[in-house]
Amino acid sequence: MFQTFSAPSDSDAIPQRIKELRALLADEGLQALLLPRGDEHQGEYVAPCSERLRWLTGFTGSAGMAAITRRHAGLFVDGRYTVQARNECGGGTFEFPGIARTALATWLKDKLKPGDVVGFDPWLHTVSEVESLRETLKSSGIALKPTRRNLVDRIWGQERPAPPDAPVIAHPLKYSGRSAADKISALQKALKDAGQDAVILTSPDSVCWLFNIRGSDVAHNPVVLAFAIVPASGKPELFVSAEKISREVRAHLDGAVKISPPAVLAERVAALRKAKKRVRLDFDRAAWWFWRGLGKSALRGNDPCIGPKAIKNATEISGSKVAHIRDGAAVVRFLASLDRAIEGGEAIDEISAVRALEEQRAGSQALKEISFDTISGSGPNGAIVHYRVTEASNRRLKKGELFLLDSGAQYLEGTTDITRTIAIGDAPAEARERFTLVLKGHIAIATAVFPKGTRGLDLDPFARRALWAAGLDYDHGTGHGVGSYLSVHEGPQSISRAGGAIIEPGMIISNEPGYYKEGAYGIRIENLILVNPAEKPKGGEREMLSFETLTLVPIDRRLIVKELLTPDEISWIDSYHATVLSVIGPELDASTRRWIEAATKPL
Amino acid sequence: MFQTFSAPSDSDAIPQRIKELRALLADEGLQALLLPRGDEHQGEYVAPCSERLRWLTGFTGSAGMAAITRRHAGLFVDGRYTVQARNECGGGTFEFPGIARTALATWLKDKLKPGDVVGFDPWLHTVSEVESLRETLKSSGIALKPTRRNLVDRIWGQERPAPPDAPVIAHPLKYSGRSAADKISALQKALKDAGQDAVILTSPDSVCWLFNIRGSDVAHNPVVLAFAIVPASGKPELFVSAEKISREVRAHLDGAVKISPPAVLAERVAALRKAKKRVRLDFDRAAWWFWRGLGKSALRGNDPCIGPKAIKNATEISGSKVAHIRDGAAVVRFLASLDRAIEGGEAIDEISAVRALEEQRAGSQALKEISFDTISGSGPNGAIVHYRVTEASNRRLKKGELFLLDSGAQYLEGTTDITRTIAIGDAPAEARERFTLVLKGHIAIATAVFPKGTRGLDLDPFARRALWAAGLDYDHGTGHGVGSYLSVHEGPQSISRAGGAIIEPGMIISNEPGYYKEGAYGIRIENLILVNPAEKPKGGEREMLSFETLTLVPIDRRLIVKELLTPDEISWIDSYHATVLSVIGPELDASTRRWIEAATKPL
Repeated sequence: MFQTFSAPSDSDAIPQRIKELRALLADEGLQALLLPRGDEHQGEYVAPCSERLRWLTGFTGSAGMAAITRRHAGLFVDGRYTVQARNECGGGTFEFPGIARTALATWLKDKLKPGDVVGFDPWLHTVSEVESLRETLKSSGIALKPTRRNLVDRIWGQERPAPPDAPVIAHPLKYSGRSAADKISALQKALKDAGQDAVILTSPDSVCWLFNIRGSDVAHNPVVLAFAIVPASGKPELFVSAEKISREVRAHLDGAVKISPPAVLAERVAALRKAKKRVRLDFDRAAWWFWRGLGKSALRGNDPCIGPKAIKNATEISGSKVAHIRDGAAVVRFLASLDRAIEGGEAIDEISAVRALEEQRAGSQALKEISFDTISGSGPNGAIVHYRVTEASNRRLKKGELFLLDSGAQYLEGTTDITRTIAIGDAPAEARERFTLVLKGHIAIATAVFPKGTRGLDLDPFARRALWAAGLDYDHGTGHGVGSYLSVHEGPQSISRAGGAIIEPGMIISNEPGYYKEGAYGIRIENLILVNPAEKPKGGEREMLSFETLTLVPIDRRLIVKELLTPDEISWIDSYHATVLSVIGPELDASTRRWIEAATKPL
Repeated sequence: MFQTFSAPSDSDAIPQRIKELRALLADEGLQALLLPRGDEHQGEYVAPCSERLRWLTGFTGSAGMAAITRRHAGLFVDGRYTVQARNECGGGTFEFPGIARTALATWLKDKLKPGDVVGFDPWLHTVSEVESLRETLKSSGIALKPTRRNLVDRIWGQERPAPPDAPVIAHPLKYSGRSAADKISALQKALKDAGQDAVILTSPDSVCWLFNIRGSDVAHNPVVLAFAIVPASGKPELFVSAEKISREVRAHLDGAVKISPPAVLAERVAALRKAKKRVRLDFDRAAWWFWRGLGKSALRGNDPCIGPKAIKNATEISGSKVAHIRDGAAVVRFLASLDRAIEGGEAIDEISAVRALEEQRAGSQALKEISFDTISGSGPNGAIVHYRVTEASNRRLKKGELFLLDSGAQYLEGTTDITRTIAIGDAPAEARERFTLVLKGHIAIATAVFPKGTRGLDLDPFARRALWAAGLDYDHGTGHGVGSYLSVHEGPQSISRAGGAIIEPGMIISNEPGYYKEGAYGIRIENLILVNPAEKPKGGEREMLSFETLTLVPIDRRLIVKELLTPDEISWIDSYHATVLSVIGPELDASTRRWIEAATKPL
């Protein structure tokens, strides 16, 4: 229902599309065109009409950029997509020089000559991206030039899907916990304090959070693709087609927000410039189009919704707890049925597992969407960190292997994200040992107590210490922020080597250390955790913070080597399992209840 | 012999000195003068002739700056010196606005008006310092102007001590492990690779390391105060008075280095500029004087000796181990005698303890210097992190209190730095518990295994986790780099919140978590640790690093609450103590040997 498993199949058409694009380059007097994977909002998920990179190159990854010159074509992807890009876009049309941030300028300098002009769509690149590339290319005499209408769209023509027209949904106070009017007035105060006349919001997450609205314009992330201008005083203006707004939503927004058609956005930007207003714009997130439109009115400043959105209020926190109970029960029902099916010798594969899990989640009637494409990897597929199962890669779950399942759901009350690694039959000793090392890291994060001012990067090493001692590690961060019925990946918080943001009470973060043995198996244990003020122990002198684990699903006891755990670690697992049983148990039918009782027995 | 304990006593003269300085300001057409604590080399230790800040203000701390206007006088010190500065420089002459880096510009803008000129000695401020202050003051119309001869020196006159004339000492290959010729040729290759024609070395540490020389121009840090210019090809030139160079040293250096009088330095810099050479200069460490002299020839680049100097070679490492055995035996003899004295009811105070410890160290005949002023704090004095005992603050060691002793030695083979916290009589339960929490942090660092590429900041939280869990913390870094018969504080490595440098094999770092209860007691446990490649465990996949503890002195068992330690922690302590006994035991007389046997018994 929510996930599809087919690989792209129209790769034969790609050389012809590239040929037509090159003809257009000649018409436009350009020597090259940049084409990123992204839309006007620079989000992680885009609508089908914005899947230009996929249409032109066949590459289905969630991040990347193509640069097409009259003779060459470069596809720039990061480490996680190197193999996939070569598989999907092989055949000699493309070169794969590295990631755009470090390799694009060098590649362009190599392929082009002084006086050449590179086209770009002013809506699809951020201010920082364009200005830093322009600066780098300047010394080689290569210019950047915005195109009028997107060149790929001109070739795509009638085949291009229509833009999304999903209705805007009011997100009621019962779930948001804070009125739009209240959020707007706090934002306006911040603008006044900073001496700014207005801010332009370009991230759908921020727009939806501020106005307490949601939508379904893109997969998995319940946002409305819309821009907004918030003046320091007066009514904010939300730019969204009238047909997307029902009478109820208009009533929900009325008073606090003015709704205008997207077509007037350019006029409004021009008016701000003409009136010499000081307009805050997030240069790292906003399309270059806004910066050009604002001219000297543009002031660099981060998106002011990101900070407050990350800190959940009491309603969002209790909503998240409700969502985690509902989601935990669904995942437990799935895990119990999976165990029964494996014991019964049924043929379960990666795709049927995804479908069965979705059915359990959908059974509650409260599921709005899954929060991302499920990662369902058995045996060696589990070792591919960003694996997405397709009909071609699908494997049957085999006894003696591990099965890694990373999934999540969108409910009105909150967003979930959980990974469990499951023993299919008896797991080999090495896999159990390494599972236990990953578990030690997971527990080290779950039980950490730390002072105010601690950054995510200060916590990340706790998750790795046990693996490091065994000469092992994993090549991803330990945790990302999670939205409230919004994106499953949100900033500014993270637990990672680069996590410079301060961890603050009310943030929800994932705790997901892992281990991956290429060609063999993958392990990841992921719960969502909430940041709380810590209780002050006797004699304690400083204000400390700690985590509360929100996700409530058993961690596979069959994979735990008890002898490798300390008494404190064992008691954490036992106490976590006792909570899971007491909270999730009552939600279950008798047979699943028997399963969870066994699954949560003390070690 | 090495340490003095008297507080400064000529504070009555200060108002008159300030008055004379203000008269000079008027003569020079200046509205203010900046006066930092520092010399032409910007090191931590300065010669008596460079103690201008102390002479003018009475402030004896190791870092700070004064700004004197015609009417106002500001003394800018950091948090550790706030109380001391008010004690030493009270009486109304000075304001204490904060630290210079954040508060100086604001203070100057407040006290001065557009058109005013602030004088500074071009030798006493770094390039970055002057240029960033100049930029900040520009908007207020305030200018910075280098003075000709230091204005304070003109008032100080005949009373000013002569510059140091300590002889230069050759540091033989037996201790340095690598010839100056070899170091110079590696440096010259790096310059050529970077397309640089020369580098100017302004840090005495770097000059002494590169040329394998040592000196005694300042206290505790066995350096020669000298500059050097190293061209990409040809002989480096060392600027040092001929009378400091004996025939033997000249022979030691000859062939590899040209020795020139300091007076020709200005000519050389001018010649580099005239020849349009590309000259590397460390803008964060070099005096502004060089930058002005080089003009467009100055290229920003860090001091190229800092990286290689931090990574000790095999000779330096085995030298450090020799030094730690010798030093460990001296400290153990002192600790044994202290226990005997306390048991016998002898009156021991903080100063007599420092003297007794120095005597033990000097007894080996190998002691060249102590490596810093000993921190000897009993009871509440132990809670003052940067405490220096004076005749006025001196306390007798009392039963039921803790005694914190942080000291180190300079030997030809290496530099030591050790802190022990000692129970005087029976320690209270709370102090023992907190000592044990600090010990857990110390062990967490000592036993850490971590991948290549790990930064000091990634390790720092390991030292704090146990304290954090108890609501406690300490407000200093966990470790600093240590030189090889050089400065006891050296970069780039550190274990701290700001420790961005990668930890590499061969580095020597201190491991010194602590806890301080104001008005009551201080705890710190400090060993030096060496970074080694870790042995790869069975099944290990990645190259890992680990630490080897160099310092060999018992950790006070009377302060350890065994029940708070894990089995792994207990076995670390027992195994550390077994090593201490087996290595240091044979160096001791019979009575001290009995003491160490008891002090290293398994827990």
